[in-house]
Amino acid sequence: MIKVAVLGSTGSVGRQTLDVIRSLPGRFNVVALASGSNVTILEEQAREFRPRMLFCEREEDYARERIKDRSLTGKWATMEEMAAHRDVDLVVVATVGATGLGPTLAAARAGKAIAIANKEVLVMAGHIVTAECRRSGAELRPVDSEHSAIWQCLRGESPESVERLVITASGGALRDLPQEELERVTAEQALRHPNWQMGKKITVDSATLLNKGLECIEARWLFDVPMDRIEVLLHRESIVHSLVEFRDGSVKAQLGVPDMRLPIQCALTYPDRIPETTVPRLDLKSIGTLNFGIPQHHRFPCLGLALEAGRRGGTAPAVLAAADEVAVENFLAGYIRFTDIARVIEDTLSAHSEAGNPSLEQVLEADRWARAYAEDLVRTKA
Amino acid sequence: MIKVAVLGSTGSVGRQTLDVIRSLPGRFNVVALASGSNVTILEEQAREFRPRMLFCEREEDYARERIKDRSLTGKWATMEEMAAHRDVDLVVVATVGATGLGPTLAAARAGKAIAIANKEVLVMAGHIVTAECRRSGAELRPVDSEHSAIWQCLRGESPESVERLVITASGGALRDLPQEELERVTAEQALRHPNWQMGKKITVDSATLLNKGLECIEARWLFDVPMDRIEVLLHRESIVHSLVEFRDGSVKAQLGVPDMRLPIQCALTYPDRIPETTVPRLDLKSIGTLNFGIPQHHRFPCLGLALEAGRRGGTAPAVLAAADEVAVENFLAGYIRFTDIARVIEDTLSAHSEAGNPSLEQVLEADRWARAYAEDLVRTKA
Repeated sequence: MIKVAVLGSTGSVGRQTLDVIRSLPGRFNVVALASGSNVTILEEQAREFRPRMLFCEREEDYARERIKDRSLTGKWATMEEMAAHRDVDLVVVATVGATGLGPTLAAARAGKAIAIANKEVLVMAGHIVTAECRRSGAELRPVDSEHSAIWQCLRGESPESVERLVITASGGALRDLPQEELERVTAEQALRHPNWQMGKKITVDSATLLNKGLECIEARWLFDVPMDRIEVLLHRESIVHSLVEFRDGSVKAQLGVPDMRLPIQCALTYPDRIPETTVPRLDLKSIGTLNFGIPQHHRFPCLGLALEAGRRGGTAPAVLAAADEVAVENFLAGYIRFTDIARVIEDTLSAHSEAGNPSLEQVLEADRWARAYAEDLVRTKA
Repeated sequence: MIKVAVLGSTGSVGRQTLDVIRSLPGRFNVVALASGSNVTILEEQAREFRPRMLFCEREEDYARERIKDRSLTGKWATMEEMAAHRDVDLVVVATVGATGLGPTLAAARAGKAIAIANKEVLVMAGHIVTAECRRSGAELRPVDSEHSAIWQCLRGESPESVERLVITASGGALRDLPQEELERVTAEQALRHPNWQMGKKITVDSATLLNKGLECIEARWLFDVPMDRIEVLLHRESIVHSLVEFRDGSVKAQLGVPDMRLPIQCALTYPDRIPETTVPRLDLKSIGTLNFGIPQHHRFPCLGLALEAGRRGGTAPAVLAAADEVAVENFLAGYIRFTDIARVIEDTLSAHSEAGNPSLEQVLEADRWARAYAEDLVRTKA
C-alpha cells in the first residue's frame, strides 16, 4: 500500500483525489489529510479514511476539538510535517495559491513522490523546488491535465529531443463574449467554464487566460524547457490536453474526456496504468470535430502578462501570482470589475523590481509586497 | 555509420528512404540496393551511393551487364543475401506485395534491425516473422505512418497497459464519390489520393480501404494486440496518424504533416530523434479543424473483408493480400471495374479453406492458390 498525504483534501482536486483512491481499494493508505477552512468535509473524510495526521487552516482549535469529540484517531500536524513524515510515500499537493509552497518544499527535501496540482508553487519557486528535487531524488508528478498530457507524451523520450511544448487552452468561460461586454462580466458568468468543473479561483483564471500563462511557467520548470519554446494553442473542446513537438517534426498529443480523475489517477499510480471504469471513454467518432486556433491575446491581456513575467523570471512570476490572487478574490467579492484583474496585475508587475535567482525568502517577500500593493490598488479602484 | 540495405529502393518509400539518408550525411552507409524492374533509377542510385551489393528483379542479366559497363562497384546479390549479410545493420524492406517476405525472414533470422514498409509481409506471415524476431532479437521498426504513430505512442509504456489501437483512415481518393459512381471509377480517379503521395498499388488499396484492413492485421503482429482491440477511425486530414487508448482511459496520438520522410526518418534513426528541416512543421493553428468519423463499411466492403480475414487468421490474410494484388493489377490495367476488386477478394476468400498457424510453405501455397484462383475469376469477369 502506498501511503498518501492529501493536502487540500476538501478542494476540487483533493476530493477527486479521494474519489480515485476510493475507486482503487487496497492500493493506497491515506495517512494524512489537510484542508483549508472546510472543517465539515474534512471531518467526513477523516471518518472515512482514518488518517493518522490531520490539519485544517482556519478555526484550528475549534476543528481540533470537534474532531476529537467524534473520537477520530488523527493527530494534529502541520502540512510541512505531513509532507516530510517518514510514513508518507506520496504527497498530493492540491492546495491553492501560495499555501502549498512550504509543504511542497518539505516533501521535495524529504525525497517524496509529489503529485502537484497547486500551480502557484512552481510559478513562485520552480527554480527552488526543482533544485531540491534533483538533490533529494524527489519526483514531481503533474496533476493538471495539460502537464499530465506533456508528461505522458514525454514517456520514453529523451529531453534533448523536445523542440516545443504546446499547451492547449479552451478559451475559458468568456471566450465568445464580445469585447465590450467584458467590463460588465459578473462572477457568475466568469465561473461558467465550458468544459471543466474546477475550483473558483482557477475557473476565473481560466476566463482571464491567466491560468494558461501560469501553466506555461509551471511547464517551464516541470519539463526544463525555456519559455520561448512553450506555446499556447486555442482548443475549444479540451479533448487534446496538450502536445509535444519533437525536433524530428513528430508531434505527440495526449487526449481524453475533460475529467480530472484521469490525470489524478495517472499521477497517483505512476508508472502503472490501472484500468479506470468510472469515467466515460473518449469517443472521437461521436465528438466529430476538434478545433484549434490562436488565443485572443488582445481580449485577454492576462495571458501576455503571465508569459512576460515568465520570461522575466526571478520574482516576477511570484508577483504575478500574488497580484492575481488578490485581484480574483476582489472580483469574486464584487469589489472590482473583470477587466480590472488584468490592470491590477499589470500595475503591480510594473511597480516591481524583480530579483534574479531569488532565495525562498526573497520570493516570499515579493509575494507579501505584491499582495499589499495589489490590495492598495484594489482599494483605490473600488 | 549504420550500414543499410534498402530493398525496393526505386519505389516511393525506397526513394524517400534515400532522401532521408542523403539529408543526414555521415550517419548511414548504403551497402545494398535492390529494385524491381526500374533499372534506370537503380543505376542512378548505385552511382550515387556506391553500394557493395545490387539486385534488380526483372531483366536481371541485362541490368547486371549494364551496371557492369558503367564500372559500378556493386556485386550481384539476392535480397535474402543482402538482408542477412554480416555487413548490414539495418534492412529497409520497401518492397511491394509478397516479394519482401523472403528477405524479411532472412533479416529476422539474422537478428537485424528491420524497418518494414512492405505490409504484405506481416499480413501474410506475421506469426512467423515475429517469432523469428523474438528468437534472434531482431527489431521490427514500422515505417508506415499509422504504425509509426502507434510505435511512438507506445514508447515508455508497458504492453499490458494498452486497451485499444485506433488506426486513422483518410477515406482514400473516392471517399466523397456517390455510391452509384463507384462502379465506373477509372484508375486515374482511384489514384488521386487526397493527402499522400504513394505508390500505385497502395493508393488503390487506400481508395478501396483494403489498405486500412491490411494495416490492422499488420498492427496485430507489430504490437501483439488482438484484432478485436484494433479500430479504424475516419480522419480526413491525415494529420493524426493513429492513436493508442490505454486502460486508464488516457489516449495518446501522434501527429504530423502527411510526409513519409518523417516516419521513415523515425525508423532509420531510432531511438534518436534527429532534427529534420526539409519537411514543413505541423501548424494546428493554421489547419484549424480535425475531423473524425466512422469509416463507410457499406461503400467500401474491402475493409470488412480484410478485418474478417484478420480475425480468421491462419492463411486467410495471405489469400486476402494475394487476391487483392491480382485484382488491383487488373483494375489498373483496365480489365475489371473498381467494384470488382472487392468481389474478386470476397469470392477468393470464400473458396479458401484456411490452415491455422500455417508454416511458411503453407502460406506461400495459399498465396499461389489465391493468385491462380483470382486470375481465373478476373478472366471470367473480364
